[in-house]
Amino acid sequence: MHISELETPAVIVDLDVMERNLSRVADYCRTHHLLLRPHTKTHKIPELAKRQIASGATGITVAKLGEAEVMLDAGIDDILIAYPIIGPEKTARLARVAERARIRVSLDSIDAARGISAAAARQGSKIGILIEMDVGFERCGLSNERDLVNLAHQIAALPALEFKGITFFPGQFGVEPEERATLRTQVNEILERTIAAFERAGLPLAVVSGGSTPTAYEGGYFYGVNEVRPGTYIFNDRNTVAVSAASLSDCALSVVVTVVSTAVPGHAVVDGGSKTFSSDRFQAGDERGFGIVKEDPAAEVERFSEEHGHLNISRSERTYRVGDRLSIIPNHVCTTVNMHDEIYGVRGEQVEEIWRVAGRGKLR
Amino acid sequence: MHISELETPAVIVDLDVMERNLSRVADYCRTHHLLLRPHTKTHKIPELAKRQIASGATGITVAKLGEAEVMLDAGIDDILIAYPIIGPEKTARLARVAERARIRVSLDSIDAARGISAAAARQGSKIGILIEMDVGFERCGLSNERDLVNLAHQIAALPALEFKGITFFPGQFGVEPEERATLRTQVNEILERTIAAFERAGLPLAVVSGGSTPTAYEGGYFYGVNEVRPGTYIFNDRNTVAVSAASLSDCALSVVVTVVSTAVPGHAVVDGGSKTFSSDRFQAGDERGFGIVKEDPAAEVERFSEEHGHLNISRSERTYRVGDRLSIIPNHVCTTVNMHDEIYGVRGEQVEEIWRVAGRGKLR
Repeated sequence: MHISELETPAVIVDLDVMERNLSRVADYCRTHHLLLRPHTKTHKIPELAKRQIASGATGITVAKLGEAEVMLDAGIDDILIAYPIIGPEKTARLARVAERARIRVSLDSIDAARGISAAAARQGSKIGILIEMDVGFERCGLSNERDLVNLAHQIAALPALEFKGITFFPGQFGVEPEERATLRTQVNEILERTIAAFERAGLPLAVVSGGSTPTAYEGGYFYGVNEVRPGTYIFNDRNTVAVSAASLSDCALSVVVTVVSTAVPGHAVVDGGSKTFSSDRFQAGDERGFGIVKEDPAAEVERFSEEHGHLNISRSERTYRVGDRLSIIPNHVCTTVNMHDEIYGVRGEQVEEIWRVAGRGKLR
Repeated sequence: MHISELETPAVIVDLDVMERNLSRVADYCRTHHLLLRPHTKTHKIPELAKRQIASGATGITVAKLGEAEVMLDAGIDDILIAYPIIGPEKTARLARVAERARIRVSLDSIDAARGISAAAARQGSKIGILIEMDVGFERCGLSNERDLVNLAHQIAALPALEFKGITFFPGQFGVEPEERATLRTQVNEILERTIAAFERAGLPLAVVSGGSTPTAYEGGYFYGVNEVRPGTYIFNDRNTVAVSAASLSDCALSVVVTVVSTAVPGHAVVDGGSKTFSSDRFQAGDERGFGIVKEDPAAEVERFSEEHGHLNISRSERTYRVGDRLSIIPNHVCTTVNMHDEIYGVRGEQVEEIWRVAGRGKLR
């Protein structure tokens, strides 16, 4: 099928670019002796997770237990659930999943650990635990090394759990190279102090897992890290380009849309809005705009209604007509893919693959 | 099933409040001799569309052809697709839908009209057309009455189409009562001028369709309007309350979440973020915050990661513990429901109904 035959809006992925993205990060990890455990929240597609493993990943990361179940059903059996699993139903499901796969869970409280331990002991399964540390993003994670070591001791004493190491997410890394260098120094100081505390306590850290796509090529510089979990790198997006972790030509994913109205002077409306792209903001500069029109970078994706993308074309030299097709690189691919039941892999102008976003909606 | 048995995150709808919301708008429309054609993009659930019809709606509105197909399959046969349908595949599907139901489509270009006419003529079906006019929101719609009348003449001459009237969306109505009154005067002037132009041209307007939830109780004040299309009113949300179209006690929908981390001082993290709530901003005041914690209004829903809701609890007197359950009223219910495969109708503490969000993902 030719791209022009796809009804719009349609998410397409350039397979050549995606394959290059996969190789580049895999090569970087090989060179720097880092295990690669991609975060599959970006696509939630088992076929792509398998491709990541085939290109060198050691296993995968997911955000939700429901995503782990989908990936496991597709035959992927080494999964980090980078999320505390809380509550009797969820921990029971987790314990069942852990019977069929090597499962690790990250958490930052003894309450979470006790719940998982009880369920796993009941089921007779074993679950690896990573303790989440906060390195400045202030989301989840303990920041004090005594608290971290204490929790590890408590976890080591609980049945059916295996303390494996620590994990962090450097989500505060922004655009400015100088600021990033300063942050890296700060994170490295925290890591060094923490790892030393675990050594003193006689608790070996098999895993020190960190990183994100914005820091994908800095993994080798993080003190003590032996595993990274980039997600966005498989596709890249406007935000990834803004933090210089990719160039525009590395953006594999775009959304094909159709112009449905040109009635308002200086504007054109396309058939995708916040329910097609998400309303995630641009994370750099003036935070303006919701994407890049590949065929016409002078057009600004100014705002979204739910099903309308408002293009400001007042600075454009192109003529816009109802029925024209455009492709737009979104601000944030992870939340864009999450809006769709299926997306398309294309090579040149040909649609080669149709992938079901099997993990979408598995929020629990 | 008791609410406490639902795994989180879970979207729940208070049936008593929802039924009151449905009655109130239906009563308003009866009193003011307005046809009510609710926009079902808010829920995308055929069972709720049927309840809206049972409570007095004349038919429904949808945003996308795929949503119309879902509603038609569920037995709803009077549907306005408030969106231009463009392209050979879509117009062919539209023509088939129109064989089974009374279908109207809104558009603002002769290109859109020609495509629909050709497909309907081929299929032997008949499609009602509303021309969209812009009353100041500057999204879709013609603003000049000569252009509107010209397009209507052209449509009247095309086979298989029936020109039915005009439609508008007053999306620019904001928070300030004074500003709203000024805008209403402006919109009424535009409407009066436009309706007069159609009368002079000998083109009767069977339908003058306008309105939204923020203007739901102003429908009776819009010049010449005989049909309104509110959507959000069935549930209401933080934005609806901000424009005084509802009070907090009219908010029927909330998302039950679980606290998964309290490790960062002054913060608590719940198990729903932008992939549970959407990242739609608050449309009033300082635009801050992503929802209201019903159990603790002093907690600020400060930011969302994809699966993390970051609560700032530094001004709260409540103690937050991992495992606590909270319910959060979102900024925007339409984009929140769109994240879920199913949502729950509750009465008191009991889950009475489970609805599949059957129209979710029907983007084409």
